[in-house]
Amino acid sequence: MQPIVVDAMGGDNAPSVIVEGARAAIELGIRVELVGDPARIENAGDIVVHKALEVIGMADEPGRAVRTLKDSSIVRAAERVRDGHAGAMVSAGNTGAVAAAALLRMKRLRGVNRPAIATTLPVPGRTPKILLDSGAMADCQPGWLHQFAQMGSAFTQVRYEVDQPRVGLVSIGEEPEKGNQLVKEAHQLLADDSSLNFVGNVEGRDVLSGDVDVLVADGFTGNVILKTLEGTIKFLVDQIVTALTAEGAAEIGAQALGHLAPIAAELNPDAVGGAMLLGVNGVAIISHGSASPTAITNACQLAKDMVDRNLVGELSAAVSGN
Amino acid sequence: MQPIVVDAMGGDNAPSVIVEGARAAIELGIRVELVGDPARIENAGDIVVHKALEVIGMADEPGRAVRTLKDSSIVRAAERVRDGHAGAMVSAGNTGAVAAAALLRMKRLRGVNRPAIATTLPVPGRTPKILLDSGAMADCQPGWLHQFAQMGSAFTQVRYEVDQPRVGLVSIGEEPEKGNQLVKEAHQLLADDSSLNFVGNVEGRDVLSGDVDVLVADGFTGNVILKTLEGTIKFLVDQIVTALTAEGAAEIGAQALGHLAPIAAELNPDAVGGAMLLGVNGVAIISHGSASPTAITNACQLAKDMVDRNLVGELSAAVSGN
Repeated sequence: MQPIVVDAMGGDNAPSVIVEGARAAIELGIRVELVGDPARIENAGDIVVHKALEVIGMADEPGRAVRTLKDSSIVRAAERVRDGHAGAMVSAGNTGAVAAAALLRMKRLRGVNRPAIATTLPVPGRTPKILLDSGAMADCQPGWLHQFAQMGSAFTQVRYEVDQPRVGLVSIGEEPEKGNQLVKEAHQLLADDSSLNFVGNVEGRDVLSGDVDVLVADGFTGNVILKTLEGTIKFLVDQIVTALTAEGAAEIGAQALGHLAPIAAELNPDAVGGAMLLGVNGVAIISHGSASPTAITNACQLAKDMVDRNLVGELSAAVSGN
Repeated sequence: MQPIVVDAMGGDNAPSVIVEGARAAIELGIRVELVGDPARIENAGDIVVHKALEVIGMADEPGRAVRTLKDSSIVRAAERVRDGHAGAMVSAGNTGAVAAAALLRMKRLRGVNRPAIATTLPVPGRTPKILLDSGAMADCQPGWLHQFAQMGSAFTQVRYEVDQPRVGLVSIGEEPEKGNQLVKEAHQLLADDSSLNFVGNVEGRDVLSGDVDVLVADGFTGNVILKTLEGTIKFLVDQIVTALTAEGAAEIGAQALGHLAPIAAELNPDAVGGAMLLGVNGVAIISHGSASPTAITNACQLAKDMVDRNLVGELSAAVSGN
């Protein structure tokens, strides 16, 4: 199998933290190579570093950055996948730029209208849920949401070996006639597609607790959900830690936090490695900008698994019914 | 001042819980009357009950229900405000039906394009935030979002005596060019309105922790945010309580939960009474379907305050610049 190529320069703590994660992946037996500026990478050891001297910043406008920074690590990583030198790419860099580079270099999968970012939502004690699109396409058409459902379903089967994943359409009421115009039209398309296990509309309150495996939304709504979820968890955890470490609470607080640690561990996004760009002709994983070495290692493992299990072929088959 | 009229029949635990909350409001010195079916109300004591023999169910289609169930408690309550017999209405019934009845009976405030539901988001240790629209209008135009910003700002000034409330537009990035088409166009309108203290785009992660007082969104996005927030808090609280009451944790768990109780109390939606329908010619408060007696009492107090402080006049002035 071809190596996984990791963008050494992407992420808040690049390159050192990224390289540390890549090294740990190699110790697990995964073939990994890096792309980046060798002069700035100090801890690569004997990992191959493919030279790319430009860096796309986290705040750069994605489309423009990909067009103008052709020797950037993100663009070069996508090219290595396109050219068959790498089986998959992993980047913790600018999300939009990774999506744009993958789309422009690897191209869309045949039959796909638009790619989508599939984010894994960890749910303590249960199989994670997949939310897509979580930010690639802010304005969507009903048919794109239909394909997101097909791709999300196929991805969930490949990744979690869930048979017939339950697909829900995010709306503001369970009844088919609830929602905005986009969702009402998409509902009909999903309901008419017998290849899907469509369970109907789901609401924001079902994101973590609902009996659903795949949550389908346009990229604007999906991104708002994802960030509301992250922000709420962070806010509550901060409040709880403050209350349990306050003077007077410290003694029992430490023990209580010990009991809560397993929940926090399961909610930690590092455990899932990164989000998956679905609908391009290759495997591309977008890790969180604040990804730890563990997140990068997990992303490499996920990338390898998705290549081994032929994710791209399964996605292609899932949308070819259109 | 005219009495506050309370829909005795609306809510999961109506009428007894609703009536209990209304009685407590009267003990606080607030004039309250009820609307509902006297034969089903057992604990009204000497509160005036205006007869309305029909009931709109929580799952009824709002528009149709309001048109056909003319002797329902929700419709009659709205008529009492319209006719000047009541200063404001409070209902824990079907949200869409309360909005539709208020709109059809009280009519829009002059100059308002569409009404919006303003929900109070409690934030432990800080002034709550206002989110609107949280579900009245699923498909919006940029100009409506502009008015939501004006009404939300005026409401926040009246309710929380915040000077120059900071208004944020919910999007998927802070930069003005981020977002869907609706948000990008609305951004320009808000930025050009010097009557607003517009702080720019805010993201889902800012909903609880951001430096913003008013969050503006279309009703689809707002409702998804609200329910994601509620669902995430409930999910986490359930997980924490389970972990801290498990065998082995029970001893320290009880103490730890005692330390966390103040946070839970501040997040309790009962404390805020209900959401406010803005943009109709009267004060209408929509309480949660699961409202407790305390929630109804607080809603009555809020209704009285908003009448005393001339909310409707202030809203009218805020939008009249259009």
